[in-house]
Amino acid sequence: MIYLDHNATTAPAPAVLEAMLQVLGSVWANASSQHAPGQQARRTLADARARAAQVLGCKPAELIFTSGATEANHMAVRGLLAAAAPGRRRVVFSQVEHAGQLRLARALAAQGVPVDTIGVHPDGRLDLEQAAAAIGPETALVSLMAANNETGVLMPVAEVAALAHAAGTALHVDATQCIGKLPFRFADSGAAAVSLSAHKFHGPKGVGALLLRQGQPFVAQTLGSQERGRRGGTENLPGIVGMATALELLGDLAAEAARLRALRDALERGLAAALPRVHVWGQAAERLPGTSYLRFGRLEADVVLQRLERLGVAASSGAACSSGGSEPSHVLRAMGVAPAEALAAVRLSMGASSTAQDVDYLLHSLPPLLEPLLREEQALAAA
Amino acid sequence: MIYLDHNATTAPAPAVLEAMLQVLGSVWANASSQHAPGQQARRTLADARARAAQVLGCKPAELIFTSGATEANHMAVRGLLAAAAPGRRRVVFSQVEHAGQLRLARALAAQGVPVDTIGVHPDGRLDLEQAAAAIGPETALVSLMAANNETGVLMPVAEVAALAHAAGTALHVDATQCIGKLPFRFADSGAAAVSLSAHKFHGPKGVGALLLRQGQPFVAQTLGSQERGRRGGTENLPGIVGMATALELLGDLAAEAARLRALRDALERGLAAALPRVHVWGQAAERLPGTSYLRFGRLEADVVLQRLERLGVAASSGAACSSGGSEPSHVLRAMGVAPAEALAAVRLSMGASSTAQDVDYLLHSLPPLLEPLLREEQALAAA
Repeated sequence: MIYLDHNATTAPAPAVLEAMLQVLGSVWANASSQHAPGQQARRTLADARARAAQVLGCKPAELIFTSGATEANHMAVRGLLAAAAPGRRRVVFSQVEHAGQLRLARALAAQGVPVDTIGVHPDGRLDLEQAAAAIGPETALVSLMAANNETGVLMPVAEVAALAHAAGTALHVDATQCIGKLPFRFADSGAAAVSLSAHKFHGPKGVGALLLRQGQPFVAQTLGSQERGRRGGTENLPGIVGMATALELLGDLAAEAARLRALRDALERGLAAALPRVHVWGQAAERLPGTSYLRFGRLEADVVLQRLERLGVAASSGAACSSGGSEPSHVLRAMGVAPAEALAAVRLSMGASSTAQDVDYLLHSLPPLLEPLLREEQALAAA
Repeated sequence: MIYLDHNATTAPAPAVLEAMLQVLGSVWANASSQHAPGQQARRTLADARARAAQVLGCKPAELIFTSGATEANHMAVRGLLAAAAPGRRRVVFSQVEHAGQLRLARALAAQGVPVDTIGVHPDGRLDLEQAAAAIGPETALVSLMAANNETGVLMPVAEVAALAHAAGTALHVDATQCIGKLPFRFADSGAAAVSLSAHKFHGPKGVGALLLRQGQPFVAQTLGSQERGRRGGTENLPGIVGMATALELLGDLAAEAARLRALRDALERGLAAALPRVHVWGQAAERLPGTSYLRFGRLEADVVLQRLERLGVAASSGAACSSGGSEPSHVLRAMGVAPAEALAAVRLSMGASSTAQDVDYLLHSLPPLLEPLLREEQALAAA
């Protein structure tokens, strides 16, 4: 199988499995216990925290382990909002945040929290003028993804951090898609809080983190003594060690990003050369290196994905969490894309396993399958 | 090592490790993805849900996977409270709930939610008269543990469920310590919601569940499309499969409970016969079969635990999550125990690995180490 759905999830690395198995089998005591096995678990936890913090460019104490990015996102928004100064009750989201985050935005709005949204340009880039208008003296926090999970378009985190800083408010960055794909250092991010998820970078599912700037006012949401009182619950030590291992395996991300960018660009160029009416969203914007979000005329995504499946290629019509639905992507709608075009969206997301052979194979085998469909489509449109 | 801290956590069973490793290595796709590997993950998830539900005596749709019991407890309390009928704003907790849950109670109170507490008798049993007085027409929910993690004393879940039912309110049961140690069926529990954690019954850390009665009004707290919209976030499939496997391994819990009860009773009898001033809390109450919470005169817990460690025995001064602190146990304080006695509390919690040889060894080797200390203590008291 050629796996082109790395934005949905990635395979745990063999070294991650080994590290987890070692902890599951030998370091299974409760890290809060005082006896020798508990102390060993505590040392293993501290070691994993230090190693993960090193890669993430944060202090160990700034790293709060969670069950994943969704929990971290909720914690960040609710925890920063609850800790905001009186008079600051507005929450700012972009319109292209992850579906779970937008559900949270609607839930907050239903509870009476004023929610401001920032739109995007037709190419998927954030509208910085709208951002500047939305972020003000009543803003409790701004929550912005680092890179969009569908288009791969990078968001202007530094610019929005500057706006947030000028307005005296906190920026939360959902870096789920960015960490593991592009170099990232919390200390340089300008963010007060950053979410991440291990399974997006060859770590295990069920573990992630919220990075929380030292001294940042924050109200814990899940209460307990663990994680310095900021996130209760017995620590998922095998998962945490798996995540730390996956982070250390990332290596030279700039080189890997260049490799994937070249593969992705060759794929997009080749498809556009071989087929009519191929449209790639966000192509002019800075994007995640391996992500291509495109349509073939107005061929329904399911039709294209079926052909890909026949070729042994696993891809997606968009975010895994909303795929299977028949609603057009909220990201594309925010970009002003017509529903019929949005329903044709196919996401190809490359990663560590992707090779030039994969691209050659796709360019060789996909166009012959789609070309007759596109011809038929055009004939129907002309009729 | 003789591990007598099964209430803190347990070793993952070998079959659990195998099942997890298989999923980590081979079924790592996102269960929300539509392609073939995603569908395989979805089938594996559905299978694990059905298997776990079978053991827990609930419908598969009533099972919401979480990152553990702490998350499940928070979800239950906040989710039931948010869904309660207008006029029902009071939340009832027992005074001996897990420390994390009592932190949540304090946080709710600080937000203006009226919190009522139910005390316990000196033997650790819940005060049912206080329960009857606390639960009324303004109660939004009652949150009660099935068994106390320190004393092991069982709480009268059926009686409190009847009180809640009569008052038209919902009962949440934190069954973290009960599930895996005593037979349990959600359908027969009388509870609207039940929390559990896999690592307490030889499953992995980082996974648990909230069982939520079908049709029970509930407001999701972590938003996303997963778990029928009741708990967002990419499913921790290896953890979930590990938990389902651990549940299926539980086997005949009544027989195992009888075995542990006999071991525990022999240990308590033997210690009391060999040493003066041994006091066991909750001994007259119905308790978890393997749990013994006791003191040796007023010997400080740390002193006793040090001797146990020297003997190769891992035990605890109480809940792992609050051990290491120098505060006396809130459970013992609620039972009216004096601080000096509470600080002498040692918890021995047996489990699957415990044997009659362990009991013999302890009865043979511990009294000679403690006897001189107890004699010295008495001499000082007499002086």
